[in-house]
Amino acid sequence: MIAGLTPPDLPVTDVALLAALDYAGVAVFAATGALAAARDRHDLVTMSFFAAITGVGGGTLRDILIGAPVFWVVDWRYIAMCIVASVVVWLLGPRPWRFRLLLWLDAFGLAAYGVIGAAKAEAWGAAPLICIVMGALTACFGGIVRDLLAGQPSVLLRREIVVSAALAGATAYVVLTAVGVADWPAAALATLVAFGLRAGALKWGWSLPSFPEASLKP
Amino acid sequence: MIAGLTPPDLPVTDVALLAALDYAGVAVFAATGALAAARDRHDLVTMSFFAAITGVGGGTLRDILIGAPVFWVVDWRYIAMCIVASVVVWLLGPRPWRFRLLLWLDAFGLAAYGVIGAAKAEAWGAAPLICIVMGALTACFGGIVRDLLAGQPSVLLRREIVVSAALAGATAYVVLTAVGVADWPAAALATLVAFGLRAGALKWGWSLPSFPEASLKP
Amino acid sequence: MIAGLTPPDLPVTDVALLAALDYAGVAVFAATGALAAARDRHDLVTMSFFAAITGVGGGTLRDILIGAPVFWVVDWRYIAMCIVASVVVWLLGPRPWRFRLLLWLDAFGLAAYGVIGAAKAEAWGAAPLICIVMGALTACFGGIVRDLLAGQPSVLLRREIVVSAALAGATAYVVLTAVGVADWPAAALATLVAFGLRAGALKWGWSLPSFPEASLKP
Repeated sequence: MIAGLTPPDLPVTDVALLAALDYAGVAVFAATGALAAARDRHDLVTMSFFAAITGVGGGTLRDILIGAPVFWVVDWRYIAMCIVASVVVWLLGPRPWRFRLLLWLDAFGLAAYGVIGAAKAEAWGAAPLICIVMGALTACFGGIVRDLLAGQPSVLLRREIVVSAALAGATAYVVLTAVGVADWPAAALATLVAFGLRAGALKWGWSLPSFPEASLKP
Repeated sequence: MIAGLTPPDLPVTDVALLAALDYAGVAVFAATGALAAARDRHDLVTMSFFAAITGVGGGTLRDILIGAPVFWVVDWRYIAMCIVASVVVWLLGPRPWRFRLLLWLDAFGLAAYGVIGAAKAEAWGAAPLICIVMGALTACFGGIVRDLLAGQPSVLLRREIVVSAALAGATAYVVLTAVGVADWPAAALATLVAFGLRAGALKWGWSLPSFPEASLKP
Repeated sequence: MIAGLTPPDLPVTDVALLAALDYAGVAVFAATGALAAARDRHDLVTMSFFAAITGVGGGTLRDILIGAPVFWVVDWRYIAMCIVASVVVWLLGPRPWRFRLLLWLDAFGLAAYGVIGAAKAEAWGAAPLICIVMGALTACFGGIVRDLLAGQPSVLLRREIVVSAALAGATAYVVLTAVGVADWPAAALATLVAFGLRAGALKWGWSLPSFPEASLKP
């Protein structure tokens, strides 16, 4: 355990909140991993691998960084869920609406995971800025590794809002709980904020201003 | 240490088993890393770096995930072995049979490491499914990082059986020990299963069925 | 905490030394990450992400490997510093001397971080060889991840001296402190050694001899 961070001594509702968001985030991200592998026509084992990496990657990094036991090592049902998600994607087979679905699942996973990451880091006593960073990391890391292993351009390099949506959700959660809003409404609102931003980016291509000038690469 | 996982309190033979497989896996994988760097004509330092990453990468991830002290940080001989492997590859120089050797060493490393990963996770009290996942991770992660850093397509994206062989070996070990087979024969048999599958894939291009349809990429 | 490594029980000067080098290394590396993201015309959030990954990446891996609490999770000012570095790079805007500066900052960061990594691993009781490896890892890992995520060829694959400079600095520190030189002068000298080597590589293209023959890729 991390010096300076205390182990979680949470009321039952907090634990349930974390678990519910965690399961939702893992299932949704696992499906995006499986869909990405299906797009490249991989077999079921590779699909499950991508599902697991995408589904639990972000939370794994978060747990390692805050010194918590890695959640899926302690509770094997997370991995089972990733395998189930892959089998479901496999059985569904190719459908025209799959890739649109992938984008929207990814948006929901990003929003839910951003809040989870912040909530768990807060539960372990991290400073507000660190909770926000953990939220963004938890939300984005699985997708980053998925893209890296699939040899696709990283989500980080996309021009539209992705990381910023996760940051906004995590920030909203930290601020709302700091001003006394209860955990559940804070989490719901914060998830909505992140999802709204990402949905706007998907629909209308929202982006932040980029660095002023296209300079010559050295 | 991970909550819910107990520290290893193993009889001496188990420890010796783990250590023997660990040394074999590290040496073999280190050689594949060095050979990969040699193929791209790197210097001895870069070769050693690739040897170390490939040799200890998988076990490092496993130890971090199960909350064990990282094996090569505690015992510096693993890193020394990686350096020796690089020097040997360097001194051997270019030989026509090197790349075939690389493939077969990789197959053996994959098999041995799949069983090691499962055995160590089991020793630390992880659930059977998690032990199997740890086996596959331990076996594949070093090679994944090696390919990623060398800018080559990931082992994960190969069509032939790679990850599945490690999974099969780890599963065999977990099942065999669960039904009461002693550690050593279980490990030997399981390594044989994984190596046989991978060897078949190398010889005859064995692969699993892939996702039904080549759909248009969005 | 790692079995076999004792927690740091350092005199105050050592802690100050580590902290000073750590802050310098993080700030400088964060600037290189932000500059790399600016080159690709990213927005401020992406620049901060790259700044943070590059700035704290190496130290994060080191802390996870030696079983220390991750430094920036415990002390949020490191992340704040990465954000400040990004804002400064943003406000500076495009300047012709930016990319030369990037190279020299990177060289200084490499030198400082190589020594930090070795010093912290030594403080935690790791063996000399492991301290040297930790120095090189700490110095290079942030840049490796930065290049990987930006889709650029890894620093590892460059022909000129990079990793070797960090190794030389870390080795110098370990040897100097082993023969009784005090921490501060040892750190200063070792940083100079590493910086000198890297500077020579930048100026005159110094490199180590590469593997003998360009063999046909299989």
